Amino acid sequence: MAALHLLSPRGFVAGATHAGIKRRNVPDVGLLVCQRAASAAAVFTTNKVFAAPIKIGREHIAGGRLRGVVVNSGNANACTGRQGEIDALAMCSIAAQVVGCDERMILPSSTGVIGHLMPMAKVETGIRAAGADLGDSAEHAERFADSILTTDLTRKAAAATIKIGRQVVTLAGVCKGSGMIGPHMALPGKAGSPLHATMLAYLCTDADIAPAALRKALALATDSSFNCVTIDNHTSTNDTAVVLASGLSGAKINTAPALKKFTAAMVELCQSLAQQIARDGEGATKLVTVTVKGAVNATDAQAMARAIADSPLVKCAMHGNDPNWGRIVSAAGMCGARFNPDQATLTLQGTRVFHRGRPLTFDTAHVSTSLAAKEVTVELVCNLGKAHATVWTCDLSRDYIRINADYHT
Amino acid sequence: MAALHLLSPRGFVAGATHAGIKRRNVPDVGLLVCQRAASAAAVFTTNKVFAAPIKIGREHIAGGRLRGVVVNSGNANACTGRQGEIDALAMCSIAAQVVGCDERMILPSSTGVIGHLMPMAKVETGIRAAGADLGDSAEHAERFADSILTTDLTRKAAAATIKIGRQVVTLAGVCKGSGMIGPHMALPGKAGSPLHATMLAYLCTDADIAPAALRKALALATDSSFNCVTIDNHTSTNDTAVVLASGLSGAKINTAPALKKFTAAMVELCQSLAQQIARDGEGATKLVTVTVKGAVNATDAQAMARAIADSPLVKCAMHGNDPNWGRIVSAAGMCGARFNPDQATLTLQGTRVFHRGRPLTFDTAHVSTSLAAKEVTVELVCNLGKAHATVWTCDLSRDYIRINADYHT
Repeated sequence: MAALHLLSPRGFVAGATHAGIKRRNVPDVGLLVCQRAASAAAVFTTNKVFAAPIKIGREHIAGGRLRGVVVNSGNANACTGRQGEIDALAMCSIAAQVVGCDERMILPSSTGVIGHLMPMAKVETGIRAAGADLGDSAEHAERFADSILTTDLTRKAAAATIKIGRQVVTLAGVCKGSGMIGPHMALPGKAGSPLHATMLAYLCTDADIAPAALRKALALATDSSFNCVTIDNHTSTNDTAVVLASGLSGAKINTAPALKKFTAAMVELCQSLAQQIARDGEGATKLVTVTVKGAVNATDAQAMARAIADSPLVKCAMHGNDPNWGRIVSAAGMCGARFNPDQATLTLQGTRVFHRGRPLTFDTAHVSTSLAAKEVTVELVCNLGKAHATVWTCDLSRDYIRINADYHT
Repeated sequence: MAALHLLSPRGFVAGATHAGIKRRNVPDVGLLVCQRAASAAAVFTTNKVFAAPIKIGREHIAGGRLRGVVVNSGNANACTGRQGEIDALAMCSIAAQVVGCDERMILPSSTGVIGHLMPMAKVETGIRAAGADLGDSAEHAERFADSILTTDLTRKAAAATIKIGRQVVTLAGVCKGSGMIGPHMALPGKAGSPLHATMLAYLCTDADIAPAALRKALALATDSSFNCVTIDNHTSTNDTAVVLASGLSGAKINTAPALKKFTAAMVELCQSLAQQIARDGEGATKLVTVTVKGAVNATDAQAMARAIADSPLVKCAMHGNDPNWGRIVSAAGMCGARFNPDQATLTLQGTRVFHRGRPLTFDTAHVSTSLAAKEVTVELVCNLGKAHATVWTCDLSRDYIRINADYHT
């Protein structure tokens, strides 16, 4: 069996092209289309400064049905006023002509620089070219995945199958995100839990599932995946994750066990994508997984995991392979969560370094060497309750400064 | 008249010495003594992981009277368990012998690496040597100020006089802080507003003021100064600010107008010290003053100013002299405060760059050149209310990474 990709679920095609929004000759406009009106759900940034496509997207997802998404990279269409909204709607309208549907059946996304009007002539040509290129091959999936990248160094994709009764359901997704990552996404109208960056994620499935159930599954998956990634704790104006369900597998997700199984698969898919984002954070040399266990409640657990993952001091220590546990324990203590160092245990890459208020004697050179891995785990056990949380981040390197001090508006 | 310094207020002497806690031959133990039982107040870190001297300090300040403070740099005496408390108390006890007072009249402070027991033989020798060196000269003041520095590149001090009736009251202070700066200090037992780093501040005055009034003045000054500095948004285990009032000017601060004048002077003194901390942040090349005006309330104003000042993306833009206003406006939008970009105006170094939801046309090269200054101002006007807040920070440079990825435990 061939490797799964974004277009493996039945009923989807995609196309992408270099429209010239970006100078480099890489795809910067993409179109993902379902052959029928898909059941759909989306979560969006909770930033009060949200881009024009977010405004239009919230309107278009309201009915719970979409035929497709139109995306571009190189320009965020954010802080662009009324003209920005006209342009985001025009992107939908052009895509709808290509697809042959109502413009409200298309969800738009943009990522890139803030505060510049969209070069609409290029965008229109791009959307039409992407529409002329639609297909369901792995190559089409890859080109679409590439069309959403900005400072990303790697393409990000994941896919899985589950069995519902005797039927096979495929779930697949692509995403982007490398800087301005600290997503806090929520269903339209919901406050949502905190998250940040421009991160975009597009998920396809051939499950037969109603929009309401799909919304629940996406919200739950987002809260335990994309909303648990932080690169620089800066929530973007454009964060979006959307899922389209074609129903063409014939597998109905209309019982509690089926929904549970489907949601679990979506959680796992989104967690894979989220980890790919953290691993490819701007300037990152490693993926850092921060787990807090034994907290009084989930809010406390997440606050501590985030405080650790967002501390520049912790991130620099991770970059320097320095088992500087004082920075980690003090980060847990500063976020307002209930925490008592005299009851806590900290483990770095499997080595206990702090236990019940006191440093443990450990082989610093050994732990430092173990921290030089591509994947590093930080585990704080609070011994105060049963709640836990995991946040994915990366180290903070000189390259983050280079990318963000030299990337001019 | 000679320049004012920490020991200009009547009744104070100080001494400092190199005890050998630090390898470099710089003062690392200091003693600041009042010739009589001074009225005293202190605020401490609100981190749940607090160092042993914080625990002892909270106990010793309870009576509102102190004879002095004993300080060391090079070791934070944090996460050191019961032995750490014994050592912090021993520091007070040795200092009390030197001064000739009860050990509860001494407040201890430590700053440096977390998780190592204090080298008490060196510390004891150091405290006795500092005690043998006590004096009230400018040089004594400078040596004391130097004894609290860690990664700081500059000594930090400020002083002022005010007239209360016909009498002159002198206020003076020294402080330290460069990394792990995001103080959130509060009076013992109070929740306090957020702040972060190890920052230490010692203030002397010869005003005649009761402990309760001094506490109020210090709490107010702290909330509008030290608690408004952020280098890396990491609240230290050791943050402390303490003020001693000898009363020897004879000027009684016991009327509302006198207290108002005294408090205003203390606010100004602490703001000067706070700005010195931001200016000398680890790796900093410039002081960045973020002011938010027209917010719905003070909490919102401070949340937005902090979100801007703590964003690594904003700090990198400041480092690169990049008028990347999208990062600033989106930071204001992500912190939960009430904010509407369509009503807001952003000004960078005096140039309006964003107004009511839309970019303004401006000379990018000119603004970039203006951002290359040693002091940069970012002003966001929300037009939603009357509340305002100011936060001081610095840019984020490769040197921050060098200092914190290479500074090993």
